[in-house]
Amino acid sequence: MTDRIATFSAAGESFYGVVADGGMIALSPDFPQWPTLREVVEAGALEQLVEAAKGRPVTHPDASFQYEIPVPAPEKIICVGVNFPDRNAEYKDGKDAPENMSLFVRFPRSFTGHDRPLIRPKASDKLDYEGEIAVVIGKGGRHIPDDEALGHIAALTLCNEGTLRDWVRHAKFNVTQGKNFDSSGAMGPWLVPFRDPAQIIDVRLTTRVNGEVRQDDRTGRMMFPVARQIAYISTFTTLLPGDIIVTGTPTGAGARLDPPVFLEPGDLVEIEAEGIGVLRNGVADET
Amino acid sequence: MTDRIATFSAAGESFYGVVADGGMIALSPDFPQWPTLREVVEAGALEQLVEAAKGRPVTHPDASFQYEIPVPAPEKIICVGVNFPDRNAEYKDGKDAPENMSLFVRFPRSFTGHDRPLIRPKASDKLDYEGEIAVVIGKGGRHIPDDEALGHIAALTLCNEGTLRDWVRHAKFNVTQGKNFDSSGAMGPWLVPFRDPAQIIDVRLTTRVNGEVRQDDRTGRMMFPVARQIAYISTFTTLLPGDIIVTGTPTGAGARLDPPVFLEPGDLVEIEAEGIGVLRNGVADET
Repeated sequence: MTDRIATFSAAGESFYGVVADGGMIALSPDFPQWPTLREVVEAGALEQLVEAAKGRPVTHPDASFQYEIPVPAPEKIICVGVNFPDRNAEYKDGKDAPENMSLFVRFPRSFTGHDRPLIRPKASDKLDYEGEIAVVIGKGGRHIPDDEALGHIAALTLCNEGTLRDWVRHAKFNVTQGKNFDSSGAMGPWLVPFRDPAQIIDVRLTTRVNGEVRQDDRTGRMMFPVARQIAYISTFTTLLPGDIIVTGTPTGAGARLDPPVFLEPGDLVEIEAEGIGVLRNGVADET
Repeated sequence: MTDRIATFSAAGESFYGVVADGGMIALSPDFPQWPTLREVVEAGALEQLVEAAKGRPVTHPDASFQYEIPVPAPEKIICVGVNFPDRNAEYKDGKDAPENMSLFVRFPRSFTGHDRPLIRPKASDKLDYEGEIAVVIGKGGRHIPDDEALGHIAALTLCNEGTLRDWVRHAKFNVTQGKNFDSSGAMGPWLVPFRDPAQIIDVRLTTRVNGEVRQDDRTGRMMFPVARQIAYISTFTTLLPGDIIVTGTPTGAGARLDPPVFLEPGDLVEIEAEGIGVLRNGVADET
């Protein structure tokens, strides 16, 4: 069984702990020196949590808590755009694959936790999914060489990089607004400690909507592999422990279907990756 | 004399306080409930700091401290691109002025404080200035109406939205990387409490390089005035106290000169706005 470390809330209080059969084993009360998983990651202590959970009973049974995004307040969440070969063709702009990766930024509040609804805002009915794997930086740095980059990863998680398609093309450039509607995406359900490059180099990533497979590809086909992403990003900014890189989505988002199909209340979106799990979210309208 | 509230450091310790003749009056030791100006802004207590400084002596004389960016860790810094009429023409892409504003995100670490060097990185020699006024949100909210928007501002400051011109066009879309080199821009020197819409509606904004005026315009000519910016941004994300909106730069950046002229070590850049002050930075190479 994969070790899984989650952030969750119950009765208005926030915890982190280890996911077990039947519920959560809360551990944050035992580690007041680390208020959130960001500080746990910074201390290099994910494995210590896994150890601490052994033999302990569930403190929060299923249905008594809700999932939160795993790292609640990273310094930065950087997303890689157009990172699978067919995705570049989907743009139909006649341009060759770019020499460098497109990057944009999302705020933590644009994501909700596992098993909670994505919010379709009043401003747009063009809410779309993008299934992705996210890496959590463990060891910070600047000018990280490609061949050392994977050694800077602390954990993996999943991301539904939910997007308001009309709002990404609202302006002359950038996609900031369509990528940052409150709770328009999701992250989680949990962190899986990163122990082996095989966990990211060539794993299968799929997205299902109401059970129908819409995205299905392998990380081995990325135009810019994760090691390159870490190296490139650290050329301009210092990566910190807890920073998150959302590594890119395969072809098959709803906007690319003919005719396009967007998410509606009642839909269920599942993002799955080998060795990480399934991130599942419904859809609700903004109230 | 304008009231000025700054964040600064001395002997490795960080403080906030009020700027006086001859130095700083540190006030953070008196207000442990507010660790940084973000919490002061959240508490609506900028005016309380101004009051607390009255009659007090300077605690840190000039040259015994260095300026830090005023709000060290806001949840978000959102920048408005292409917001003066001639700036759109500068793009020479044959497109009309856009219907909505371009937005991008900068991380706090992409800015340094007043009187400290902008860093020209190893990766590019195309460091350019952009003089701007930044507004600090005091009262958070979502779906803020235009006619109430200015009431959500707590303070004003200045920004040199320093940019690596080749790295903003590295990829298919977005400007993330060229806008986020560590210490490639500056913010400060201080916060000026916002008390009157006249402080932002039509004030003069100039940029000088080595004393030569390069940018000179008025906020009254913005395509998207500050009230519109706050209203538009709050359509998609919840603004929080301490969030910063960098409101756009006039025409005249170095990249638009013919031939283009970029910043070099030895240059001195000054951003000035009526009622706020002067943000001054040299340039140094990354070591």
